[in-house]
Amino acid sequence: MIVVLRLGHRRVRDARVTTHVCLTARAFGASEVWVDAEDRELERVVDGVVARFGGPFKIRTGVAWKKELRAFRGTKVHLTMYGLLLDEALPAISKAARGKDVMLIVGASKVPGEVFGLADFNVAVGSHPHSEVAALAIALDRLTRSGWARTKFKGASVAVRPHARRKDVVKLNKGKGPASEEE
Amino acid sequence: MIVVLRLGHRRVRDARVTTHVCLTARAFGASEVWVDAEDRELERVVDGVVARFGGPFKIRTGVAWKKELRAFRGTKVHLTMYGLLLDEALPAISKAARGKDVMLIVGASKVPGEVFGLADFNVAVGSHPHSEVAALAIALDRLTRSGWARTKFKGASVAVRPHARRKDVVKLNKGKGPASEEE
Repeated sequence: MIVVLRLGHRRVRDARVTTHVCLTARAFGASEVWVDAEDRELERVVDGVVARFGGPFKIRTGVAWKKELRAFRGTKVHLTMYGLLLDEALPAISKAARGKDVMLIVGASKVPGEVFGLADFNVAVGSHPHSEVAALAIALDRLTRSGWARTKFKGASVAVRPHARRKDVVKLNKGKGPASEEE
Repeated sequence: MIVVLRLGHRRVRDARVTTHVCLTARAFGASEVWVDAEDRELERVVDGVVARFGGPFKIRTGVAWKKELRAFRGTKVHLTMYGLLLDEALPAISKAARGKDVMLIVGASKVPGEVFGLADFNVAVGSHPHSEVAALAIALDRLTRSGWARTKFKGASVAVRPHARRKDVVKLNKGKGPASEEE
């Protein structure tokens, strides 16, 4: 089980980027996202995507992050441009995480300095400023060996059928197979 | 040469996500980012990162996107959750792009329908809603065979030295090698 911990979320300023963090967590193989600040609207948006496109995926907001970080029984990986390079750290992380849950920690702008000490690994997806969304996607891709490309989500009410030239969204009658306007 | 074309940018609403798009483009191997709406503040932020962390990387805003898309002599890849799956499309894209420039097109929320026809390929980084930042990072990672991890940027005034537990930022005296407070 992989959980993503989002720190430093401010409802107005970070609304869109935190939404990207949550949906990227879901799409690339995490089971849960925990956000420090309470944000009902964010929960509504993410729960809506899970209802339409499937799960399981859980969002919690208003999380006491320091307590949760300390209590987490698993391998804690802080994604930061200042950390050790991902490619070099990956074997040690994989070894440490064998049979355990993994927590990936991503901040919005500044992260409290103590996070560097509370994490088991501080890891950089490149030592350059870019985006916690990009870092999360690449880290999940590497940790799961691109497992996201093969994930089957459950309980979806719609699905996208890949198409070269247009949108093809299928309504799913659960248990009855796909029903689409194109069929 | 890889250029990223960002469509649908609105200065206030998309300020942060478009900044993430631009910095992700730079960090993961694109040479330029072109943004449809004019945005001097965005240019200032991106140029500032290039000045500090190196280039070459160029940002243009206020780009006549349809004209540029039509005029682009190279392989145009539209990243959309409705497209063909990346893993399956990649061999054809790589073949088409051999010796040519590549344009990666990413939209903010809705993209004009005609983009599906103007692109050479419509490609999905997973058929699920997540983030154009995540999609761009993964697409660049695959197209460059993770070349971003080996990129040497030029003309930087600072560099991050990867560290397990803390920030270690080195000031570079250009041509004189690294000078750091830690040294």
